[in-house]
Amino acid sequence: MIDFCKKPISNRSKYAAIAQKRCHLPSGHTGRCSEFPFLKHLTGTHKRVADKIKRDATMTTGAAWKSDDAGPNRILRWVMLLSDEELLDYGLDMSNLRPGVVAKLRDKAATYENCINVAIKLTWLVYQMPHAPSPPQAIHDYLKLALDVEPLDEVETTCEICLLPLSFNMFEDAMRGKALIETCHKDPRYHNPENVGFAHRECNIAQGAKSLEDFYDWIAGILERYQRL
Amino acid sequence: MIDFCKKPISNRSKYAAIAQKRCHLPSGHTGRCSEFPFLKHLTGTHKRVADKIKRDATMTTGAAWKSDDAGPNRILRWVMLLSDEELLDYGLDMSNLRPGVVAKLRDKAATYENCINVAIKLTWLVYQMPHAPSPPQAIHDYLKLALDVEPLDEVETTCEICLLPLSFNMFEDAMRGKALIETCHKDPRYHNPENVGFAHRECNIAQGAKSLEDFYDWIAGILERYQRL
Repeated sequence: MIDFCKKPISNRSKYAAIAQKRCHLPSGHTGRCSEFPFLKHLTGTHKRVADKIKRDATMTTGAAWKSDDAGPNRILRWVMLLSDEELLDYGLDMSNLRPGVVAKLRDKAATYENCINVAIKLTWLVYQMPHAPSPPQAIHDYLKLALDVEPLDEVETTCEICLLPLSFNMFEDAMRGKALIETCHKDPRYHNPENVGFAHRECNIAQGAKSLEDFYDWIAGILERYQRL
Repeated sequence: MIDFCKKPISNRSKYAAIAQKRCHLPSGHTGRCSEFPFLKHLTGTHKRVADKIKRDATMTTGAAWKSDDAGPNRILRWVMLLSDEELLDYGLDMSNLRPGVVAKLRDKAATYENCINVAIKLTWLVYQMPHAPSPPQAIHDYLKLALDVEPLDEVETTCEICLLPLSFNMFEDAMRGKALIETCHKDPRYHNPENVGFAHRECNIAQGAKSLEDFYDWIAGILERYQRL
């Protein structure tokens, strides 16, 4: 655990009143406050990967929501904690959206604190990937402390779903504009560090809306029926 | 096998010269010629399902091809047998498309005869689904004869991928406008009756671009690693 500084960071977003952005440097730090200090090094070496971590940690995804009635494309996860009435004040009329879309958006809701902790977890996982850059010692120690990681846990990052190693190089590769590595959820309904990790895009697509446990049960059933044939 | 009448059927499509539409009633039949005589009954009882069979059997799919450089949304499968040069005469410039899109379109190419035989196979599979309407005896006999189906093969239609029964009722249900049953290919590269069947949408999505054999190998590997944990 890290005792974060938590001083407020100014924020001119229209959603600023919903969650106060805070400093996540250790309490008593010197120098300027910073919301994502653990991403400073990665932002310098691989900005797109650092931006992806921030985006996936804090924003809902918007895969197929391109039609007008399908809801906002991406929105801060903590905004989705507000009631339908409160959202009206922000110009978001949930009653205009189809029930399936509302349910999906609500499933992606998370507190600001969980989103920050997810970003920390994802940053750790990125640095543990084969071919990843090495973090400065200070960031390595910060991440370990923030996550309570035992030395034993310094293992190669694997896809949460197929359990094969995930190479950092896959962030650069892309198929039809789609990254080959995606952020995934062991249970798609919860966005917190225990539940979040990385997966191959094809594994994430195969898991779909199922929990990882249900996914393993499902493919075990398929194999059983297939082998009986 | 059925000895088809094969008399030409008039066709005002701009692609008419590529494949001559023909009559698929038995040779020596009485009455008017018909291209899809085996779909006559289903068109009367469940037009949308009959139209889906025709469409999936004869047209390429167009899932994500909505951008201008991503190619035509749906096109007759036998048009994709033409060379790039021949396609230019039809206003289709394959050199404008990304290589991945071209490969996908070319994989979906099939002869007119294979498309008709796929339609016959899919019609048989639909009638063998739990809760499907019963075909008139003449259509039942036609389908059996056309497919060389043994009486033993009169079994419930199952999802080609997960091997669970597919209820006809699932054609009516839909999630976000997407049917719950899709036409699938044991090997996505070949469109012929042996290789085509029906699958749950979620199973088809999970199989992705893999052959069914590769898919089973893939999930077996996942389970093996998962169980080792």
